[in-house]
Amino acid sequence: MKLAVVTSNPNKAREVAAYFAGILEVEHVPLECPEFRHTEIAEIARGKAEFAYRALSRPLIVDDTGFFIDALGGFPGPCAAYVQDTIGNEGILRLMEGVADRSAHFETVIAFADEDGIRTFQGVLHGAIVEPRGEKGFGYDPIFACAGRTLAEMPLSEKNRISHRARALEAFRTWIREERAS
Amino acid sequence: MKLAVVTSNPNKAREVAAYFAGILEVEHVPLECPEFRHTEIAEIARGKAEFAYRALSRPLIVDDTGFFIDALGGFPGPCAAYVQDTIGNEGILRLMEGVADRSAHFETVIAFADEDGIRTFQGVLHGAIVEPRGEKGFGYDPIFACAGRTLAEMPLSEKNRISHRARALEAFRTWIREERAS
Repeated sequence: MKLAVVTSNPNKAREVAAYFAGILEVEHVPLECPEFRHTEIAEIARGKAEFAYRALSRPLIVDDTGFFIDALGGFPGPCAAYVQDTIGNEGILRLMEGVADRSAHFETVIAFADEDGIRTFQGVLHGAIVEPRGEKGFGYDPIFACAGRTLAEMPLSEKNRISHRARALEAFRTWIREERAS
Repeated sequence: MKLAVVTSNPNKAREVAAYFAGILEVEHVPLECPEFRHTEIAEIARGKAEFAYRALSRPLIVDDTGFFIDALGGFPGPCAAYVQDTIGNEGILRLMEGVADRSAHFETVIAFADEDGIRTFQGVLHGAIVEPRGEKGFGYDPIFACAGRTLAEMPLSEKNRISHRARALEAFRTWIREERAS
């Protein structure tokens, strides 16, 4: 099976190719998928996979990621990218001033589509909103800490091992290995 | 011509039907349209209209609305609904504490699709972020003032006359009247 990685981001496709080296052949397909407005990341990923499968008719994965802060009712959620581009971490910290509950999580869902339908694989990373620390990574990494360090303080190799995205990829890889063994 | 008003909100369809009484026959079609992630409201509306026209193959309108605060880089923009549901007006006011530039605007774009393609009609309402006043309306209405009053202080009939949505509908009505007269 040759797996299409449907994303506008070639770095993501390269990451998946490396992850599946020796297991699956991977090809980057830069198709932009529309999204149904939904607060559930799994539903957004599923809708994108349905769209992509109608367009391509071949085995593929798409993904979607959200960032949820408990005390803010799940904000910025599926709007994480737009919020980062506008009010950024400074805005998030302002909203969290004096807020005791700092808990937050990232969620990535990978949706796999083939002729049998769609399956979703979730990866979640729980942590807390903190004052900015660290120089690595991007986006919310400096203000999101888990196990005592922010994502921006971790070497990229470590972040890539524990991240929500890595966990979703691992869940998908475990499933596809079993699937292909049976 | 019978115009399909494609929206999941029956109140919007009724509003359009009333607006076009004697000009166009209007029918509510509750089709949910996916959106390409885009910061331009016109591009979001256009993408939804393309999707809906492929599904329905008949003259139709869809709309999309955003709320843009200049000092926040356009936030909440196309994420206005999700932001209102999570951090709400309290969150907006917190982000605007001590900010001198209070200017903001609503934008609605109506996209009309028929066999000739897609046309978009824009309506914009400029105003300012203020402390909450008024009991009418919903969403951002209490913290958005234009011409000295918040939208929540205006009678609904007045709001419906000056609103971004009314302006977009008016632009569309003007065009379609000329179109049908020619």
